[in-house]
Amino acid sequence: MTEFTWSQPHHDGSALYVPDPNPRLGGTVSVLLRVPRTSDVTSAWVRVINDGEPELVRATVDRQDERATWLRAELPVVNPVVSYRWLLDGGPYGYQWLNGVGLHSHDVADAADFRVSTYDPPPPWATGTMYQIFPDRFAKSVDRPAPVWAKPAAWDDPVIGEGPDTLRQYYGGDLDGITAHLDHIASLGVGTIYLTPFFPAESNHRYNASTFNEVDPLLGGDEAMARLSAAARARSIHLMGDLTTNHCGDTHEWFQAALADPNAPEVGFFFFSNWPENYDCWWGMKEMPIFDHRSRELRRRLYDGPASVVARWLGPHALAAWRIDVANMTGIHGDINVSREVAATIRRTMAQVTSESFLQAESNHDASRDLYGDGYHGTMNYAAFTRPLWQWLLPPQPRPYAHGKYPMLPNLPGGMVVAAMRDLSGVTPWQATLHAMNLIGSHDTHRIVSLLGDEKLVDVAFGMLAAYPGVPMIYAGDEIGLATMGPEYARIPMPWAHPERWDQRRLAKTRALFGARATSVALQRGGLRWLAVGDDALTFLREAPGETVLVHAARANHEPVQLPAAVVGTELAGLAGTADLRSGADGLVTLPAAGPAFGMWRLFA
Amino acid sequence: MTEFTWSQPHHDGSALYVPDPNPRLGGTVSVLLRVPRTSDVTSAWVRVINDGEPELVRATVDRQDERATWLRAELPVVNPVVSYRWLLDGGPYGYQWLNGVGLHSHDVADAADFRVSTYDPPPPWATGTMYQIFPDRFAKSVDRPAPVWAKPAAWDDPVIGEGPDTLRQYYGGDLDGITAHLDHIASLGVGTIYLTPFFPAESNHRYNASTFNEVDPLLGGDEAMARLSAAARARSIHLMGDLTTNHCGDTHEWFQAALADPNAPEVGFFFFSNWPENYDCWWGMKEMPIFDHRSRELRRRLYDGPASVVARWLGPHALAAWRIDVANMTGIHGDINVSREVAATIRRTMAQVTSESFLQAESNHDASRDLYGDGYHGTMNYAAFTRPLWQWLLPPQPRPYAHGKYPMLPNLPGGMVVAAMRDLSGVTPWQATLHAMNLIGSHDTHRIVSLLGDEKLVDVAFGMLAAYPGVPMIYAGDEIGLATMGPEYARIPMPWAHPERWDQRRLAKTRALFGARATSVALQRGGLRWLAVGDDALTFLREAPGETVLVHAARANHEPVQLPAAVVGTELAGLAGTADLRSGADGLVTLPAAGPAFGMWRLFA
Repeated sequence: MTEFTWSQPHHDGSALYVPDPNPRLGGTVSVLLRVPRTSDVTSAWVRVINDGEPELVRATVDRQDERATWLRAELPVVNPVVSYRWLLDGGPYGYQWLNGVGLHSHDVADAADFRVSTYDPPPPWATGTMYQIFPDRFAKSVDRPAPVWAKPAAWDDPVIGEGPDTLRQYYGGDLDGITAHLDHIASLGVGTIYLTPFFPAESNHRYNASTFNEVDPLLGGDEAMARLSAAARARSIHLMGDLTTNHCGDTHEWFQAALADPNAPEVGFFFFSNWPENYDCWWGMKEMPIFDHRSRELRRRLYDGPASVVARWLGPHALAAWRIDVANMTGIHGDINVSREVAATIRRTMAQVTSESFLQAESNHDASRDLYGDGYHGTMNYAAFTRPLWQWLLPPQPRPYAHGKYPMLPNLPGGMVVAAMRDLSGVTPWQATLHAMNLIGSHDTHRIVSLLGDEKLVDVAFGMLAAYPGVPMIYAGDEIGLATMGPEYARIPMPWAHPERWDQRRLAKTRALFGARATSVALQRGGLRWLAVGDDALTFLREAPGETVLVHAARANHEPVQLPAAVVGTELAGLAGTADLRSGADGLVTLPAAGPAFGMWRLFA
Repeated sequence: MTEFTWSQPHHDGSALYVPDPNPRLGGTVSVLLRVPRTSDVTSAWVRVINDGEPELVRATVDRQDERATWLRAELPVVNPVVSYRWLLDGGPYGYQWLNGVGLHSHDVADAADFRVSTYDPPPPWATGTMYQIFPDRFAKSVDRPAPVWAKPAAWDDPVIGEGPDTLRQYYGGDLDGITAHLDHIASLGVGTIYLTPFFPAESNHRYNASTFNEVDPLLGGDEAMARLSAAARARSIHLMGDLTTNHCGDTHEWFQAALADPNAPEVGFFFFSNWPENYDCWWGMKEMPIFDHRSRELRRRLYDGPASVVARWLGPHALAAWRIDVANMTGIHGDINVSREVAATIRRTMAQVTSESFLQAESNHDASRDLYGDGYHGTMNYAAFTRPLWQWLLPPQPRPYAHGKYPMLPNLPGGMVVAAMRDLSGVTPWQATLHAMNLIGSHDTHRIVSLLGDEKLVDVAFGMLAAYPGVPMIYAGDEIGLATMGPEYARIPMPWAHPERWDQRRLAKTRALFGARATSVALQRGGLRWLAVGDDALTFLREAPGETVLVHAARANHEPVQLPAAVVGTELAGLAGTADLRSGADGLVTLPAAGPAFGMWRLFA
């Protein structure tokens, strides 16, 4: 079954529909609605919430072209976040709401209203493709003595996936190793390197920091960071660090100070129920005491102001961005919830250092309430991208997440998958969707090749990663087809010395996809308009002023999808090695019906 | 088209499903799922958000009866509000979420997760039927000289519906007039009288108070309030006042003090952009300057602590509840948003006076974020009840709301109407839905008789008002069938002296309906389980431990709705004058197929 949606009215937060995505408080913001000629909608209002009260603003015709009428409304910017939805005539009952999820013939709740924010936008570079590096496993520049907590491994040793040695297995990757391989990274069209933690810690993942004051000497220390930063900058690649604001290691100097003296200021950084024995910790792991964000001194040291950890690692010699670990939990504990304050403070501190900084958050479910614009710019997009995509491409499979928090995922037809994407991205402001970290795998999941098995399905996953709104994140090694099951095994070292283990086809395709994305404003910033949704094939447009890209993804052979030439244009140029598309004698464009396959085409105007 | 939903798994926040709706922080809460024998669901998990992180809790079989299996999960109460949803196997793809809206075969956002709160619950009496009185128009005990601002009217004069005299037209109803008619009110099964404002003000609606320190002498003053309160209390009827925390009148003593002296503390109560000429006001009306809730002194005087307006009118000699006018706007202005603080402070102050107080809020759209349990107990339920019900019963009609904020409402089939109800109540915690003020008309709408025309459709509207979850509110005069179009004309005086204008059939039916509700725990507190939803007929259960009521509402003649006797029971007793229901020879119960009609039956166990 295929649902064709190209004749529906459309709005999203992209430039064609909201020319100024960052209006001024007290000013106005224009919003536009595209009404296809084939639609029965003839008039529209916008319901906007001003000071908590809904108001209706009438839309008027802005312009008409051969395919559509564009309606425009001018909304007052009464509050920092403008929440609005469209009210249309037309549809089966002459009454339709259009919100972030789509069209509704009945009244709906406000969660999926469109939202435009007056807060400073993310920097322009933030939409560049990301590349995730787990430093211990990426590349080693020099042999160093292993620390006492570690169990040293040779680079080609198998990963220990279970037991106490899992976190101790130490391969010795370092920052100069990354610097040495920047050409490889740059060849993928990458704009940002996402480094998992680089502070000293008594584990290979380093999420249990012993200090935030220096780069782990095992990684080469502060000097290696300066070298990496300079070399990356020379290639216009930005660095994103990974900070645990939720907890630190029990070896951390602040926690040790708290243990040493009940009157130490650091005692207030933690939740001691019975000093020093009992304290609250992350998932019950005593190695990771959680922070009490009510402490002003903790805030000052960690993220509030120019002397904080957040501030001092930003700047020309280090990072351009932070990814906040378990941001969904940070600041929430029992009857305390200061999570939005924490996020807004981190953001403010970063903006004080540089207006060009970017703030990502980890989350594994609906994070929409953290994304209204004054805190995190985006979150890891397991919810609206990864899980739905996996559900489309995966056979039923146990626990694709780490930690057993999710049960078996089902295999779902395209309609259900797009419904999930629309439902979850519909509650998220467009700018946050555009800056969400999309991923098909990470150090916390299986490797995508192993999850899907079929390399053509992997092509589809990579294609969707490049084409779907958001910031694609490539987990190091996925671009060469590393295949392991289990999140720990996914932390396999990059086999630089074993070119025979590299999937050169995968590498070439990855370079082509993300190279194309790096030159496409539509893929980086364009809107998302679904054209056809079938069980086995998904077709949508990414639209920006001056550029439109047609995307067609199929998980299997399917009935041919035909689109009116009036919608897709008469001539199409391939972007990713697929053949050009042309309309047939009947005026229809027929998309390739074979699958699994992925294609995208830049449309001629 | 009728959708039968009685074979679906069900959960809501009522006692059958959440035996303890008010668990203790740090404890646990049991949640139960009813899985009909006819369902294909065999196992379930609960996803609960703990400290911002989703966790899965396995449900186990609690008990089985001949119709259903009951699954139970014990959830930790980690945070003040427990947010959860069910994950089921079964359904078309073997994977279903059940949240407040219903079943979903794909991932959905968190807005409609079920929610249980640890905050103190509303008092038991709060679910009693409400009766709204606009004091100037209800009943007059004595003739008083009209004030200078007023244009006096005789009781039988027509209402002036437009122009400057609309707000000045003064009929002189008073509190002793209400006291004199308490027998009439009590005869309707009423538990709470909702009085629109009683403070002195230079308008007949009194939403522009001149002081909050005394009952308007035109209404009989404080002594009349004490008499009314005592007389109502003697009949177990509670009084609810109506407070404008968003604004006051420009004649208010605080505003006058602010105008008189730029150094007066009251200057900080308002938003003066250019003292004293320019100040921010409600909907641009200079007569209603809005409050700046950042002022601690304003809070202290208005709602924070025992000396506040909120506190001093509560208690044995006056009110048991407050309805907060335009609560949806209160505390929100430009880049200021302290709305949740305001609501929580009002609630805390009320609880300090008496644990038996009840806090209602005005809202005209999705108010779910104000209803998590620490602020308003409920809101006026235009969104999830009034508008969907009107859309089912109304022909297309211009502006059933006051103020022209909404355009024409469509006529929608039952499926769309129930979808709207589910969508909007699904985001609202069950306890807030149960304490929402449901209404079919008010001083701000047309009279229901005039809106619907057909008296049998009015029967259906009243029936749904009595039967749907929430606190029904009867606008004085609707129980005798007063018929006027336009919100101002709806403020027609009660024709006590004209029994010939009373619709005695309507009065008898209203007494029967709400009398029945007053003795039914299922109607006051029971869950809501939809059984069948057709274009023209809606069928649902209200379920409580020990009592189940079957409700069937039809807007027109329709195909007969048949339910398996296993679901509805074998013998049924009428509640509201309808005939008993019995199962036929085929073991099915056939509901009446004529319409418009409304019936409900208490099911035998």
